[in-house]
Amino acid sequence: MSSSGPASLQRERGPGRLEAFSDGVFGIAMTLLVLHLVAPGPGGLAGSSLGQELLSLWPSFVAYVTSFMTILIAWINHHNLFSLVKRVDRPFLFYNGVLLLFITFVPFPTSLVADYLQHRDAGTAAAVYSGTSLLAALSFNLLWRRASGKGGLLDERVTAEEIRSITRQYYVGPSIYAAALALSFVSPVGSVALCAAVAAFYALTATIASMCG
Amino acid sequence: MSSSGPASLQRERGPGRLEAFSDGVFGIAMTLLVLHLVAPGPGGLAGSSLGQELLSLWPSFVAYVTSFMTILIAWINHHNLFSLVKRVDRPFLFYNGVLLLFITFVPFPTSLVADYLQHRDAGTAAAVYSGTSLLAALSFNLLWRRASGKGGLLDERVTAEEIRSITRQYYVGPSIYAAALALSFVSPVGSVALCAAVAAFYALTATIASMCG
Amino acid sequence: MSSSGPASLQRERGPGRLEAFSDGVFGIAMTLLVLHLVAPGPGGLAGSSLGQELLSLWPSFVAYVTSFMTILIAWINHHNLFSLVKRVDRPFLFYNGVLLLFITFVPFPTSLVADYLQHRDAGTAAAVYSGTSLLAALSFNLLWRRASGKGGLLDERVTAEEIRSITRQYYVGPSIYAAALALSFVSPVGSVALCAAVAAFYALTATIASMCG
Amino acid sequence: MSSSGPASLQRERGPGRLEAFSDGVFGIAMTLLVLHLVAPGPGGLAGSSLGQELLSLWPSFVAYVTSFMTILIAWINHHNLFSLVKRVDRPFLFYNGVLLLFITFVPFPTSLVADYLQHRDAGTAAAVYSGTSLLAALSFNLLWRRASGKGGLLDERVTAEEIRSITRQYYVGPSIYAAALALSFVSPVGSVALCAAVAAFYALTATIASMCG
Repeated sequence: MSSSGPASLQRERGPGRLEAFSDGVFGIAMTLLVLHLVAPGPGGLAGSSLGQELLSLWPSFVAYVTSFMTILIAWINHHNLFSLVKRVDRPFLFYNGVLLLFITFVPFPTSLVADYLQHRDAGTAAAVYSGTSLLAALSFNLLWRRASGKGGLLDERVTAEEIRSITRQYYVGPSIYAAALALSFVSPVGSVALCAAVAAFYALTATIASMCG
Repeated sequence: MSSSGPASLQRERGPGRLEAFSDGVFGIAMTLLVLHLVAPGPGGLAGSSLGQELLSLWPSFVAYVTSFMTILIAWINHHNLFSLVKRVDRPFLFYNGVLLLFITFVPFPTSLVADYLQHRDAGTAAAVYSGTSLLAALSFNLLWRRASGKGGLLDERVTAEEIRSITRQYYVGPSIYAAALALSFVSPVGSVALCAAVAAFYALTATIASMCG
Repeated sequence: MSSSGPASLQRERGPGRLEAFSDGVFGIAMTLLVLHLVAPGPGGLAGSSLGQELLSLWPSFVAYVTSFMTILIAWINHHNLFSLVKRVDRPFLFYNGVLLLFITFVPFPTSLVADYLQHRDAGTAAAVYSGTSLLAALSFNLLWRRASGKGGLLDERVTAEEIRSITRQYYVGPSIYAAALALSFVSPVGSVALCAAVAAFYALTATIASMCG
Repeated sequence: MSSSGPASLQRERGPGRLEAFSDGVFGIAMTLLVLHLVAPGPGGLAGSSLGQELLSLWPSFVAYVTSFMTILIAWINHHNLFSLVKRVDRPFLFYNGVLLLFITFVPFPTSLVADYLQHRDAGTAAAVYSGTSLLAALSFNLLWRRASGKGGLLDERVTAEEIRSITRQYYVGPSIYAAALALSFVSPVGSVALCAAVAAFYALTATIASMCG
């Protein structure tokens, strides 16, 4: 691209439209999860009742709520990160797209966990599930590295000390999901439970913060 | 998080992006409902006509319109609540997420009602349907409690009297849906009709307001 | 609602958030249409080639493009209407929701037309298809009546003469779709062709305007 | 339309709402791609393991990532184009809609490639796939022609030299996808690989730009 007019116009771009686009993708990925909740029709009950069938779908509900909360927390993190960003450039747009690739992928491993959590291949399902969360968490790190790097994308009121503090916080997600991936080979249920615990822990601290504040 | 730069930047956040994100989720949940309307193809008519098949789908259409209007009214309430909110914090983001969890779940009980309203298990379907609306209405109360609580999230022009008035209004939804849940064990059709009546009442008052205003 | 603080805050609301919400619903309804385009997998070819199968799907492609363009034109009309609107009230929110109900319903009659256009029940499919467009066009009239009525929702720069001119334009849609509905009982293909012609006419005039402007 | 009030109001419209609407459509099209990733349930494994089944789905994953990145790059281009646009008119709205028609269509050829890449009809699938990308790239050219034409839609800070430079860049996409379409008749895998290479090249240059900047 030439360096004058259009380039300078583009350089002025704030993150507004990228936020709106990302919001849409996060929201759709969260909403599509419900399509994998399918109860048998009246013709498929085979002697049992609808209530029994719904109870036997518990792995689907656990996977649904865990994935929903995981994407919700990812969105809140995205929201926090973008509140520090003043402008975006092409690599930032691209890394954000890679993050969205893994976010939109979540319904697939969620359906694997729902189908296979009580099956001998539960380990494979749990590995794909925790591995997807790991890749999403690593993408978040790439995005933050770009934001906080030499390109000057952050608001200038963010200090070097604060950047280091946030960078340390960003190590937590990949570490936990790497542990969940390793655990999937030993205990598939434990691996999914660890992913669910991250969401539950977040919910708990939000509730406590709410009662204190 | 450290207390200076980024925290203060985040403290400035208005509800704009949260609104846009929530709008996307409400809109998608409403639009996905149509995916559960499925007519048999020409090979599945089995002697009847398409017209007869469409007429026999009436529980699906009733469930579709009721769920659509329920989510629409929830969105209008969300719109009204947010018009009073000046800034958001982490618990508010989280409670909004819980509300969205139940909103996005609506297509599932809607499909249950469509499939089971004329079946002996209609009670289970109606209980899950009205129970989901009850949980969504309770989430709305949590969100309003947080908004109107000590955190100072509301616009300062909202008076204490007005807050009490709105708090009283927020008791209506959970009360009706709790009644619908109780009714589902006695009369499944009555339970779904009560949920539909809420939407119809709202439509009626909007139309009357329109004719008067 | 009490008449002071919150009510006055709400009275200030512009159409911004309603536009964003509606945009999401229009966009999702347009995008979901593709889910009804399904080609048989390699195991379902039964002696024919993929190319032959795709050609035999032509009613699906015609229905897809017609519905997509119909929703696109509805969105452009919505966009035009909202550019004249200065503020919204509860009946306007509600009528907009009714319009969105019929817009999100479009994928269902589209799939009927795709499945039944070459079948003896094509008349039923065409009637549901043109009837849905008719109801959407009538909803547009309700919305415009509310916008241009006594409530003072329009920008004050819009003159009475202009309102009358637009009101006359709004008669065109319902008239054509009522004709298409009547035609569906005589010639199903003619009815769908009339709906497609509306979209094609719009495309043509846009292209001509483009070549002239 | 009459030439005074409303027309002048409409003439003031910036591209804001069109961007938001388009963002929704791009985002949904990208997110719907995951619905075509379907693993067999435990009852459908037929002696193999879930891991083996997932590995045999590789054409689906290749098609998923390629289509996701193709739509992402189209969105980034759209973002760039719109950063130069100051106002929109009816033909521009319409051409943007035609572009969105081909973008929302992408999940269909993606599922064809996933199903047929290892089948004798792979050529047909690859032709539909690359042909869709070609039509989307041509729509982008139409949109840019309208933006940079006599209608005065561009920001006046964009110089004639810059317009010529961008016009030349816009020849690249159609040329590559026309080559991919031609290649589909000789080597279906090569055709899809060329489409994937466009996305990979873009990713590579974004990463290099990131390491340099």
